[in-house]
Amino acid sequence: MEKILISEVGPRDGLQNVQAVMPTEAKLQWIGALAAAGLREVEVGSFVHPKWLPQMADADAVVPRARAIAGLTVLALVPNLKGAQRALAAGAHKITVPVSASQTHNMANVRMTCEQSIEAIAAICAYRDEMAGAGPRVEVEAGIASAFGCSREGAVPERWVMEMAERLARAGVDSIGLSDSVGVAHPRQVKRMFGELLRLLGERAGGAHLHNTRGQGLANAVAALEAGVTTLDASQGGLGGCPYAPGATGNIVTEDLVYLLESMGVDTGIDLERLLQARAILAAALPGEPLYGHLADAGVHRGFRYADPARAALAAPEGAFCPGGAQPTEAA
Amino acid sequence: MEKILISEVGPRDGLQNVQAVMPTEAKLQWIGALAAAGLREVEVGSFVHPKWLPQMADADAVVPRARAIAGLTVLALVPNLKGAQRALAAGAHKITVPVSASQTHNMANVRMTCEQSIEAIAAICAYRDEMAGAGPRVEVEAGIASAFGCSREGAVPERWVMEMAERLARAGVDSIGLSDSVGVAHPRQVKRMFGELLRLLGERAGGAHLHNTRGQGLANAVAALEAGVTTLDASQGGLGGCPYAPGATGNIVTEDLVYLLESMGVDTGIDLERLLQARAILAAALPGEPLYGHLADAGVHRGFRYADPARAALAAPEGAFCPGGAQPTEAA
Repeated sequence: MEKILISEVGPRDGLQNVQAVMPTEAKLQWIGALAAAGLREVEVGSFVHPKWLPQMADADAVVPRARAIAGLTVLALVPNLKGAQRALAAGAHKITVPVSASQTHNMANVRMTCEQSIEAIAAICAYRDEMAGAGPRVEVEAGIASAFGCSREGAVPERWVMEMAERLARAGVDSIGLSDSVGVAHPRQVKRMFGELLRLLGERAGGAHLHNTRGQGLANAVAALEAGVTTLDASQGGLGGCPYAPGATGNIVTEDLVYLLESMGVDTGIDLERLLQARAILAAALPGEPLYGHLADAGVHRGFRYADPARAALAAPEGAFCPGGAQPTEAA
Repeated sequence: MEKILISEVGPRDGLQNVQAVMPTEAKLQWIGALAAAGLREVEVGSFVHPKWLPQMADADAVVPRARAIAGLTVLALVPNLKGAQRALAAGAHKITVPVSASQTHNMANVRMTCEQSIEAIAAICAYRDEMAGAGPRVEVEAGIASAFGCSREGAVPERWVMEMAERLARAGVDSIGLSDSVGVAHPRQVKRMFGELLRLLGERAGGAHLHNTRGQGLANAVAALEAGVTTLDASQGGLGGCPYAPGATGNIVTEDLVYLLESMGVDTGIDLERLLQARAILAAALPGEPLYGHLADAGVHRGFRYADPARAALAAPEGAFCPGGAQPTEAA
């Protein structure tokens, strides 16, 4: 059975992009509900200075409590070595470090050139290796932002993206993913670039972080799947990413992605009904914040089955149907 | 250069699903704006009895006036022979006849079995052949509704759909398309079924009519393209189809589809700026009616280019960008 790992980024990428600061208890309730729905990896926070992102100020508290959830891989974003030290001290299973393929974007984001960022990530990997004796090895992931194009520079040379990926692998990064940070990627580009990444890096080729800014998110997710990608980031309610305009969502929506993959026969291990329960918890914790996605409104349909035959019986046989399905077009 | 025909169904499928009745003049202004944006085929109305669909009562007036637009193929939906007679009298270039692959859905829709519908369509084709002496031959298209599944019956056997398609071809239909009327199709199914349709029918294999009910519309459009489909239906603002719930769109959104295809290097011949002008006309004519789609909010991006190199200069170099692209993650 074909399987895919969905890495939920809502508690980090989502919450850092909303004004409200979600209380620690609410975050943990939401993360717990996500895990109960079958999410096996959640990016629970970011170890960035609270003056920049007050929404992430409780990362030191969230990580160890999320670790207590059985079976969950607790992932945290770290911008630099200091963040990595905090994340490892808090007990993150895995850390993700952003670096942009666009010099302009990287400079604006972390005030370093791409080359300086790669050196900084090498130092993080070295620190991780040093600390390895103290406990289980922490996985280091790097996400190459603006890998498919940059809102400032326009096109980003694909060869440069691949060169960065190779340099990051040599620096000791375990898994190097590609991010469509501003929602400019298209399916053929996604398929081509992940194909190349897999060819160059093999097991170190990481996941796809895709945005739905121009509605192309799920088409790109299918393209990544076809290229052989086995990890897809998504955010519940499409929260975060770059929600700079009404109706313009950021990250691809976890609910819609799970529905699509399961329909296609790709096992996610996620239960849609419980996932929608987690969405209700999120909605209650962020009153007034728009949540995106279609599945929450449309429901599943008669005929929907999970990819895993063992779960076929779980599909709601009486989902939400289209009352307008029969149009009265009888008489001309 | 790879090309695709986008068939705009908004003035029919869209408007018949909104409460308001758009005045004839407004319809023609909108259709004119769509044609000015480069749409070469528009489904302008439905020859159904006005007691069923008062929104379509002016089809006899709209068709001849739409015909006056140079270069535009004027398409109209007809439910039966009487509708076909009206459509031909009004001067439609092409007519489309719906038939559902689901017996339950077809009975509810046109009170006929699938087999009776195929006979009725054969009679329409015979009538068209009879009238051929009076003017240019009118193309007859059939769209097989519920081809990917039915909200009432669940799964619809794919072999039955293909058998219907073959029977329709033998009945004289020029082009047989497949419709995901209730938004249950997934990309692998779309690719497989259109591949089979093309293998069986060759040049008589028609276009894809896809809905975005569960967010999967553009992923399915890409799958149809990969299968070799050369005509895709879409609706401006995602209007119509089955908008039974807030946020649940019906048809795939023309603007988002054009953006995606052009990004992929597939020429649509459509100008996005003018297409958004047509959307503004639509929005003004239907105050309060929600329009869907992402491109209208996000705009194109720096680096976007039309597929046709001759049109590369037309792409807005300063589209709407993501102001949140640079996140302050500098200090941990």
